[in-house]
Amino acid sequence: MDPYVIQMSSKGNLPSILDVHVSVGGRSSVPGKMKGRNTRWSVRPSDMANKTFNPIRAIVDNMKVKPNPNKTMISLSIGDPTVFGNLPTDPEVTQAMKDALDSGKYNGYAPSIGFLSSREEIASYYHCPEAPLEAKDVILTSGCSQAIEMCLAVLANPGQNILVPRPGFSLYRTLAESMGIEVKLYNLLPEKSWEIDLKQLESLIDEKTACLIVNNPSNPCGSVFSKRHLQKILAVAARQCVPILADEIYGDMVFSDCKYEPLATLSTDVPVLSCGGLAKRWLVPGWRMGWILIHDRRDIFGNEIRDGLAKLSQRILGPCTIVQGALKSILRRTPEEFYHNTLSFLKSSADLCYGALAAIPGLRPVRPSGAMYLMVGIEMEHFPEFENDVEFTERLVAEQSVHCLPATCFEYPNFIRVVITVPKVMMLEACSRIQEFCEQHYHCAEGSQEECDK
Amino acid sequence: MDPYVIQMSSKGNLPSILDVHVSVGGRSSVPGKMKGRNTRWSVRPSDMANKTFNPIRAIVDNMKVKPNPNKTMISLSIGDPTVFGNLPTDPEVTQAMKDALDSGKYNGYAPSIGFLSSREEIASYYHCPEAPLEAKDVILTSGCSQAIEMCLAVLANPGQNILVPRPGFSLYRTLAESMGIEVKLYNLLPEKSWEIDLKQLESLIDEKTACLIVNNPSNPCGSVFSKRHLQKILAVAARQCVPILADEIYGDMVFSDCKYEPLATLSTDVPVLSCGGLAKRWLVPGWRMGWILIHDRRDIFGNEIRDGLAKLSQRILGPCTIVQGALKSILRRTPEEFYHNTLSFLKSSADLCYGALAAIPGLRPVRPSGAMYLMVGIEMEHFPEFENDVEFTERLVAEQSVHCLPATCFEYPNFIRVVITVPKVMMLEACSRIQEFCEQHYHCAEGSQEECDK
Repeated sequence: MDPYVIQMSSKGNLPSILDVHVSVGGRSSVPGKMKGRNTRWSVRPSDMANKTFNPIRAIVDNMKVKPNPNKTMISLSIGDPTVFGNLPTDPEVTQAMKDALDSGKYNGYAPSIGFLSSREEIASYYHCPEAPLEAKDVILTSGCSQAIEMCLAVLANPGQNILVPRPGFSLYRTLAESMGIEVKLYNLLPEKSWEIDLKQLESLIDEKTACLIVNNPSNPCGSVFSKRHLQKILAVAARQCVPILADEIYGDMVFSDCKYEPLATLSTDVPVLSCGGLAKRWLVPGWRMGWILIHDRRDIFGNEIRDGLAKLSQRILGPCTIVQGALKSILRRTPEEFYHNTLSFLKSSADLCYGALAAIPGLRPVRPSGAMYLMVGIEMEHFPEFENDVEFTERLVAEQSVHCLPATCFEYPNFIRVVITVPKVMMLEACSRIQEFCEQHYHCAEGSQEECDK
Repeated sequence: MDPYVIQMSSKGNLPSILDVHVSVGGRSSVPGKMKGRNTRWSVRPSDMANKTFNPIRAIVDNMKVKPNPNKTMISLSIGDPTVFGNLPTDPEVTQAMKDALDSGKYNGYAPSIGFLSSREEIASYYHCPEAPLEAKDVILTSGCSQAIEMCLAVLANPGQNILVPRPGFSLYRTLAESMGIEVKLYNLLPEKSWEIDLKQLESLIDEKTACLIVNNPSNPCGSVFSKRHLQKILAVAARQCVPILADEIYGDMVFSDCKYEPLATLSTDVPVLSCGGLAKRWLVPGWRMGWILIHDRRDIFGNEIRDGLAKLSQRILGPCTIVQGALKSILRRTPEEFYHNTLSFLKSSADLCYGALAAIPGLRPVRPSGAMYLMVGIEMEHFPEFENDVEFTERLVAEQSVHCLPATCFEYPNFIRVVITVPKVMMLEACSRIQEFCEQHYHCAEGSQEECDK
């Protein structure tokens, strides 16, 4: 008799959880040739899921954040320029999306690496004589996060390692460790405007080093590397034959007194995968439009890495086709004024915040040159009530309802990261509350009374 | 002296490729404490990239496809309902996107699992008493492909296996093998309208089986399982304690003489991750809006699998926020007439195609009940000129400019898959060309003259 029929007839009423065990127990009466599997349910998440660890979530979710009910919350913690409504995208960007919708041409599947016409637009927008680009050098991705994921996935095998900045964006570690790739942290030096400690960087490189991640402009530092410093980084990579993953999502977002140099424009030999997207410069992070620019003028990546990226792109296909269809107009029609206005706002916000915090005893902000962040050192010896930056930010929320991210999230204790996209009046208020908080908790360090007198 | 300064000064002119080797050779003069890495460039794609193998691409790209220059090409090979322009999405769907854009509320980051409001809409749309859903049971993904990827990633470790239908959608294998998960193929039976060979399915299950993929309605078969058959599948899963990944992207896309039953509505004990999206039913596959519905009424997945999925969602964040913002209106305002019109078109196209191909000696189409496909068996013994289905389809392109997918792409040789979304006049023309092709190449099998006389 067909056991499938037997089983079904006993299932006229769907079994209760007890019935499942009964039917499992009864399995031995089924013809013996069938291999059993489990006698009871046991479904556990994979190692990869378990290893996908986001330190920001872990730290923030565990923070005892109960804001002061008498003060409205001011969040300086979220790296999303859209949350306050003061930095809308340009109307041309929105119109480009509507035009793409109305055309009816962008509802179907694109090639997994993106429409050719969209990749041509990106290539011509970022092309320059020092780092030429064609459509074949561009892969569109679901946000810059997927660009980074694909670059790591193509360059590194489990057991290899990558070089990651400290302080640095937590996603690098999250992605790498979930894939079994070791993270080696190289130091950025606050006293040198967050330049890389090149000697320490180079000392980390070994035969298992698969790539060097360079994030410029930097999250969380807001720093922008000089041309000269970038050349030195490239020299290390060239000497050690390590390819570079350049996270340039904040590319071109630098203040007027500073110049952004795309890393690949400064080298003809080091192969560079540059990751970017619409998120920050065009102020639409939710749209998930990212890209990889392949710079490989010495043919070191060769077709193999290109093919590898194309294969990986077939896993989930690329970004939303409507955004792909809108790319041409977004890149061509967004007025210069829009970029300019964003940057002057950020610059004035950075100046305001830096000036205010630099005047507060116990804090040591590092002046940013781009992106949307500012890092502030906390002289913990002057705040003995607090164990560390996490406790400092917790108490700041509890007493002043101002929320910053503890830089422990970025592997850099005793700093906090401040987001500078908030409206000016909120920024002023936040700084004044931070001042009040610090004044209330500042203690002279032992044996340094003179410092407290100043 | 600082070696970084030395290196830089020798790099005033960027080095040629030869210079790189020279500087590498000179590295031994650098203070000896630095570990060397490579003495020359060697960047190779990872095993994962190499293992990401898409059989459709491999087979189609290697096909010697030169269409007959005297006949316009008719492609029945692409599973994209938008390519012919005869199946536009509903104007309400497009309007919903414009409204989301105009609101300005959906440009920023969403939570990685999707906006709560959007997840609430999906939950209430798919909720039913037999399979209740709340927002917490919904995860939004970048297309149904990412939904499937995340489900496999959370359920299976490398070295485990999953059960995959044959014939079946090639992405399951592509994703699984790239993750080191073994694929075990269970058979669908064409003579039983592609029902599962349950005995063979159950015989494949062992202690390493992490999940069973059930694709209903089916790509490539266009088949729709009956309630009774789905119950039998669930009985196997319950008996063997294997969770189910239900690929239900073609859910509700069934012809009027047939009923679609979401798998989870038929079981109270087997945990089911159901994957779906806007792609097919709303005819916008490029928008990359997919979702996972977590059905776990016995708490077998528990918080661990839910947390695992949430963690995995943080890797690249979710789908485009504009589409998320449009979901409410898309689900609420798309008129019934739109769904009805799509299905009656598909049904009439299926009838037309089935009727025409069933009349051709040597072909054995299997009548579909839903989705957008029809599988056609080729009696290869009657086409001795052709080695297999790949050669059959190649020659069909070369002579008749009609392109179908050889079902070898779906692990099912000697069948071809026909897409039924093409306009009626093209479908008629295609069938007539297929008829001409088959008549020209049909040979009586040896010892069966009587069959040829009919």
